Amino acid sequence: MASLQSWLEIDPKSQFSLHNLPFGIISTAEDPQLHPAIAIGDYALDLHVFTRHNGFAALSIFQPYQAVFLSQSTLNHFAALGRPMHKVVRGYLQSVLLKDGPFPGVFQENESLRSAALIPLQRCQMHLPMRINDYTDFYAGLHHAYNVGVLFRGPDNALQPNYTHLPVGYHGRASSIVVSGTPIRRPNGQIFTDPTTKTPALAPCRKLDMELELGCFVCKPSALGQPIAISDAQEHLFGFVLLNDWSARDIQAWEYVPLGPFNSKNFGTTISPWVVLMDALEPFATTGIDNKVKPLPYLDEKGKETHFDINLTTTLTTASGKSTTICRTNAKNLLFSFPQMLAHHTVGGCPFNVGDLLGSGTISGKEKSAKGCLLEQSENGKVSIRLEDGEERTFLQDGDTVMINGVSGSEGSFVGFGNCSGRIEAALDLEYD
Amino acid sequence: MASLQSWLEIDPKSQFSLHNLPFGIISTAEDPQLHPAIAIGDYALDLHVFTRHNGFAALSIFQPYQAVFLSQSTLNHFAALGRPMHKVVRGYLQSVLLKDGPFPGVFQENESLRSAALIPLQRCQMHLPMRINDYTDFYAGLHHAYNVGVLFRGPDNALQPNYTHLPVGYHGRASSIVVSGTPIRRPNGQIFTDPTTKTPALAPCRKLDMELELGCFVCKPSALGQPIAISDAQEHLFGFVLLNDWSARDIQAWEYVPLGPFNSKNFGTTISPWVVLMDALEPFATTGIDNKVKPLPYLDEKGKETHFDINLTTTLTTASGKSTTICRTNAKNLLFSFPQMLAHHTVGGCPFNVGDLLGSGTISGKEKSAKGCLLEQSENGKVSIRLEDGEERTFLQDGDTVMINGVSGSEGSFVGFGNCSGRIEAALDLEYD
Ligand SMILES: [Ca+2]
Ligand SMILES: [Ca+2]
Ligand SMILES: [Mg+2]
Ligand SMILES: [Mg+2]
Ligand code: NI
Repeated sequence: MASLQSWLEIDPKSQFSLHNLPFGIISTAEDPQLHPAIAIGDYALDLHVFTRHNGFAALSIFQPYQAVFLSQSTLNHFAALGRPMHKVVRGYLQSVLLKDGPFPGVFQENESLRSAALIPLQRCQMHLPMRINDYTDFYAGLHHAYNVGVLFRGPDNALQPNYTHLPVGYHGRASSIVVSGTPIRRPNGQIFTDPTTKTPALAPCRKLDMELELGCFVCKPSALGQPIAISDAQEHLFGFVLLNDWSARDIQAWEYVPLGPFNSKNFGTTISPWVVLMDALEPFATTGIDNKVKPLPYLDEKGKETHFDINLTTTLTTASGKSTTICRTNAKNLLFSFPQMLAHHTVGGCPFNVGDLLGSGTISGKEKSAKGCLLEQSENGKVSIRLEDGEERTFLQDGDTVMINGVSGSEGSFVGFGNCSGRIEAALDLEYD
Repeated sequence: MASLQSWLEIDPKSQFSLHNLPFGIISTAEDPQLHPAIAIGDYALDLHVFTRHNGFAALSIFQPYQAVFLSQSTLNHFAALGRPMHKVVRGYLQSVLLKDGPFPGVFQENESLRSAALIPLQRCQMHLPMRINDYTDFYAGLHHAYNVGVLFRGPDNALQPNYTHLPVGYHGRASSIVVSGTPIRRPNGQIFTDPTTKTPALAPCRKLDMELELGCFVCKPSALGQPIAISDAQEHLFGFVLLNDWSARDIQAWEYVPLGPFNSKNFGTTISPWVVLMDALEPFATTGIDNKVKPLPYLDEKGKETHFDINLTTTLTTASGKSTTICRTNAKNLLFSFPQMLAHHTVGGCPFNVGDLLGSGTISGKEKSAKGCLLEQSENGKVSIRLEDGEERTFLQDGDTVMINGVSGSEGSFVGFGNCSGRIEAALDLEYD
């Protein structure tokens, strides 16, 4: 596919090519109000300013809905307009940015609008793109689930019997989701600091980990008692973000029986700020990991390509400033797709609201270099990971910054997510009388 | 304690005595807009109408905040004013309803306000009292946890090793919380319909259960990374509701490893509509189950009475219309209190919003008649429960109505919750090509 050219100068290495146009929420020092925006090259196109200055003049079908960019500080209302409208709006924005496009008067030749609405990304403060009502984290990364299973149960029982039959998941804590750049404080929790006793202590987590995941936002609600059919599920998906499900392995190991992870997960989950719409990812549609178990009809996608070829990396930067890429994997490494997750999640009648978030589960590849979390890489602390500055890690140290990146496509037409990053702060020193 | 008398006629058997004054959200056929209200005897006192007609004229400290009753369709904004203001407002409402009270002109002698603001409860449609951002269900009912543990692991390993050290809990699905009266559809899910195969089928749940619980709303937010100290936790609690955590035991048994219950819980959780404020429950403060394990300092309440003596019952009404009380227990049967749950939940830094809901976990007493769910009563389907109409149950059938009630105090000054009820509808007949 030839890459689309814009009249705006865009570095061919930019993740925000004209093929992408992800949506986010920005503010600036000059305009601290939260505004919807799209990312293009090194700029954010402020959709509040663009709309106020009549930028959608040539898109009459959207004009009744312009309030979604004028009065809203999240993308929920835009998302709720549905996928056909996302396609129209994104297509229109592409056309006003296109070199020799059909509407040069709207933007390209409108110097005052250009200078008002195009804001250098470095000047943008990014915010959570959606108001998130409910968050669910799945476990669909087969290689991750297998690797973790081997560590705790050995290779013969690595996968639980339900694993290939349904997308295993748990309800997460929506309030703990933060946007890239938010510092993550090492949690205190009940752990075993003295191996000779069976009594837990309250202490800072010693096995602080990250998990490389994809997040997917829901744009179409569903009512209590009403399942979403697998054939309809794609219409419910708004777009993707990168997601780091920070995890406290020692807290998790003690707390998780019998009701699952809790405080080991709810101290922070970081997402990238730009939502890459499903339409932008469509050229990269592919299949996931082949499931040897035939899915039940409510999960059967009949061969439809509902996964995406997205190259994912994790970079660890120590307090010294030196960075090491510690993982290279691909979003294809999932046993279940987001449409399958949504169909399963709702088959019993669980209701969804616009803005609900699904996490994929940790995405590991088969290779050693493709393990999506430190628990796998360090074999639960037994093996050290060598970093470029000579330091070693089994789990995260205070001052470490973890950054996830994801990109599809090729130079000139990259579709990328930008950064999903967080720096570890020292635990609070809790004192009790 | 002598009971407070009102100029309004109140049945001494009413759960909504002048000692209670629980807050809820009502609408009526004549006024379909959602209004905050309190329950008193057989009436709702519409606080929107009361406020609009200057009912708070004699409470100048509250006047700057009156919008919480004028423009809001949930109690979140009132809750966010904090416990001292809840006490003042509830105390004032008590005083205007009191016989020979200090402000007879405000309400008692204001006939037009009385006829406009006092609405018979039968004419009120009840709504969810709070906008719920996040919901967590704990497992603090020791006898329940023990009974269930015995069923699945035998008496020697009934309680998991962490159970007495921390309040075990899991994140629930906020979107699935519904108000009393909402029908509950039997969920479809992956279960084993053919005992000779190891392959699950998609089918209607065959082990549909209920769980008798208390719910507690949070009224004070806490930030990411900021624990709530056990000594501050009570200031964060708004009030209690009854909660029925409907549970699909067969779906749960298959799905729950290793990440906990999921679709077995998210098809509906029913709460009673009236929030009984902490101040109303204070006279019934008591201690819970004595924990033989000394709590870590962050969970140590130092003997403070943070549990409540609330008599709880579950009534099962079959399609025939005949009702049987199947459980009598008391809210004291908890190993951990809500302040302990909140202190534990936030010790690693999990943030809270106003309106977040905590569930206690199933509250069972020690006696056979005090088992809070059918899983315990039927020993996972092995023993039939005899009902008054001659029918038998192991789990719930379509058309069954489950009602939880809760009441403290004595005749003339009851502090009760009203009904927490839901009727089971037949599962959807799901068809796939
Ligand atoms: Ca995860
Ligand atoms: Ca429960
Ligand atoms: Mg997390
Ligand atoms: Mg439930
Ligand atoms: Ni503005």
